[in-house]
Amino acid sequence: MSSTASSSFSLSIAKPSSFHRPGFYFGLRLPNSISMSSEGFVPRSSVELNRSGLRVSQTRSPIRASAATQVMDLSVGETGFKAPTIVEVDLGDRSYPIYIGSSLLHQPELLQKHVHGKKVLIVTNNTVAPLYLDKVVDALTTGNPNVSVEHVILPDGEKYKDMDTLMKVFDKAIESRLDRRCTFVALGGGVIGDMCGYAAASFLRGVNFIQIPTTVMAQVDSSVGGKTGINHRLGKNLIGAFYQPQCVLIDTDMLNTLPDRELASGFAEVVKYGLIRDAEFFEWLEKNMQALMARDPSALAYAIKRSCENKAEVVSLDEKESGLRATLNLGHTFGHAIETGFGYGQWLHGEAVAAGTVMAVDMSYRLSWIDKSIVKRVHDILNQAKLPTTLPETMTVEMFNSVMAVDKKVADGLLRLILLKGPLGNCVFTGDYDRKALDDTLHAFCKS
Amino acid sequence: MSSTASSSFSLSIAKPSSFHRPGFYFGLRLPNSISMSSEGFVPRSSVELNRSGLRVSQTRSPIRASAATQVMDLSVGETGFKAPTIVEVDLGDRSYPIYIGSSLLHQPELLQKHVHGKKVLIVTNNTVAPLYLDKVVDALTTGNPNVSVEHVILPDGEKYKDMDTLMKVFDKAIESRLDRRCTFVALGGGVIGDMCGYAAASFLRGVNFIQIPTTVMAQVDSSVGGKTGINHRLGKNLIGAFYQPQCVLIDTDMLNTLPDRELASGFAEVVKYGLIRDAEFFEWLEKNMQALMARDPSALAYAIKRSCENKAEVVSLDEKESGLRATLNLGHTFGHAIETGFGYGQWLHGEAVAAGTVMAVDMSYRLSWIDKSIVKRVHDILNQAKLPTTLPETMTVEMFNSVMAVDKKVADGLLRLILLKGPLGNCVFTGDYDRKALDDTLHAFCKS
Repeated sequence: MSSTASSSFSLSIAKPSSFHRPGFYFGLRLPNSISMSSEGFVPRSSVELNRSGLRVSQTRSPIRASAATQVMDLSVGETGFKAPTIVEVDLGDRSYPIYIGSSLLHQPELLQKHVHGKKVLIVTNNTVAPLYLDKVVDALTTGNPNVSVEHVILPDGEKYKDMDTLMKVFDKAIESRLDRRCTFVALGGGVIGDMCGYAAASFLRGVNFIQIPTTVMAQVDSSVGGKTGINHRLGKNLIGAFYQPQCVLIDTDMLNTLPDRELASGFAEVVKYGLIRDAEFFEWLEKNMQALMARDPSALAYAIKRSCENKAEVVSLDEKESGLRATLNLGHTFGHAIETGFGYGQWLHGEAVAAGTVMAVDMSYRLSWIDKSIVKRVHDILNQAKLPTTLPETMTVEMFNSVMAVDKKVADGLLRLILLKGPLGNCVFTGDYDRKALDDTLHAFCKS
Repeated sequence: MSSTASSSFSLSIAKPSSFHRPGFYFGLRLPNSISMSSEGFVPRSSVELNRSGLRVSQTRSPIRASAATQVMDLSVGETGFKAPTIVEVDLGDRSYPIYIGSSLLHQPELLQKHVHGKKVLIVTNNTVAPLYLDKVVDALTTGNPNVSVEHVILPDGEKYKDMDTLMKVFDKAIESRLDRRCTFVALGGGVIGDMCGYAAASFLRGVNFIQIPTTVMAQVDSSVGGKTGINHRLGKNLIGAFYQPQCVLIDTDMLNTLPDRELASGFAEVVKYGLIRDAEFFEWLEKNMQALMARDPSALAYAIKRSCENKAEVVSLDEKESGLRATLNLGHTFGHAIETGFGYGQWLHGEAVAAGTVMAVDMSYRLSWIDKSIVKRVHDILNQAKLPTTLPETMTVEMFNSVMAVDKKVADGLLRLILLKGPLGNCVFTGDYDRKALDDTLHAFCKS
């Protein structure tokens, strides 16, 4: 089997089923140093621009030319607000744009052109509703009197991402007599996006929906790519659907009201993109984590955009997670076990992913798949983001084994993991590892 | 707008969105007089065969040549049992076969070639399990020791087609540690098929499933075409997914244990195909309803096959119900209102559809869209099948209006209905009708 990034990648396009094979490499990197023309932020490394604002490196494999992500610049619109950066998720007839920018809720045409039918249901929670519900209703209805907007406000928190809460969305939709031409709008973080998306996938066997993510976590990860679902008491996201939105609207101004802990939580997913496929982005993050923690608007906008580009490219290549897409779950198998074992909502998702990433990196090092310097750099960057690198004291080896046994990446009884392998920015999705390394990692991190 | 069957049909292929227009015609008929070579039954009209056993009429429009349905003859297999008739549902990479025949559970290779992974979950109910669960387990495991089979037995009845019962399927799947490579098997009637299909669509965001329908209703209609879902207290099938099976296995021997009332219920859907698109089949049914009620095996096999061919063709042309597929709901809008208003499970689905069909036909006649002779023929054939042609006494106009307001065919507030129009075998799916005719029909059938 090939062990170089570009050739294994080409193979995967020709024969997706080969992703199932253990030990398959995903050394995939995004086009480097993409400019941020509409945000005004440029990474320190020099860039060259083509007409779409994207630097095309001559050293890349041919597949790069068909990369899923694009950056477009729109001129300042009639509203006087700066037009958004657009990242396209390329999925054939299910393709959609991610709009990223400031003051996007003041540009109602962005949302309105994606609304189908005359009725909209906004799904949000009791934290976000007081801050943004009226603004979103305005964005949907300004100059558009024919649309009527309903809303349902759910309790905030991962522990409510369950069937009982989901039923409240169906109840509201049916009582409001929404029909197949309606549009659901998810206004909130990852929990709201996942639940609203699954409700939209299932209501009348599928209606349109729009994502308006309000947290870094949702903006850089969960709102993009169409994974929707709810938790079961025995595990996270075990019930759901792949269901793509009409668009994702990321108004970076919404981060102004995000608590520090939520902000940092999202950075766990940002760091992930660097580790699995974008070493240059990781290096940028090492230099700019302090700016991100200080909410530098340009730095935030760049990190969000580059994360969305990485996510969009992976999703475009492997929508249903035949293989490549699984790499986005670095740290998540351990992380889900922490969330389930420690109790939904005790830690934020990104906090659990951070600790889970440290465990995956530790295991990769035990397998001699990565250099020790990578272990240190991961610890350092997560510490900079004030994210946990050790486990809650109550976590046990038995809890990990129990939850990981029902992980979605188990295939015919074998737990497949995303592990780092090779230089920074390379990973594998594999069930072909020494089980002792996993046991050693679990025992090293758990007190019992 | 065109008013002939063939030209409107061609238009629909070129531009599916045109189906939304009110008053659009669906005068579509199946290739006539398909032979039943493996069942030995031949309709009374003469037939010509091409190599696949399908008579190709020279008078058809070109689209006929790409009809979704096929009939193949397989030779008698190594097991000594007669190979099934196969009707193909043509949906690109989601295409699948419907196997129809006797003793199919004794041909384990049929099922086994569609099982993915090493674990199977059979979803059935407490009526069917004592009769067929062991037989299906045998068919899955004979000569195939690597597969392990779990099962979950749900209570029997439409009133259990709800979220609480669905959760029992997820609980069992998770407790059994099924993974993404597992296969769900629906063993039962329409309720089991709809619930198991929706569970398969949602478990781990989608796993494979197989339909083994045990009632006429499920064999001729609900198991084919990928509509899955559950009821909400306010309406039928409001929560669900379009999700196609790997195959449908119809062992006609299973009808030997079907109660008479269930048998007749299925004939309501069989009659429907004749009314909306296959006049020749309707005429055949008029001549053979007594044979069907007497469970003549050849007549049953032919009716099932021809119904599946009609269904497969419609589904292949319009999987997600943009327009044409809605015509399969003749009588169902009224019928769903009866089921919801009268109480789930009081009447069988086909009984409600029969009365609903009579109402749709009555309304079509009030609109002067059909000749009175069709009204009489519908009454006569449903009476022959001992199906109801009047309503339960408790049904009121207000109950109809309330339930029909949340029907999935409402679009932007307008209730679209399937009504007959023109000669026998022609129908329309339209919101463009005189509301007075609907009111008159409701008042004619309801006592208050």
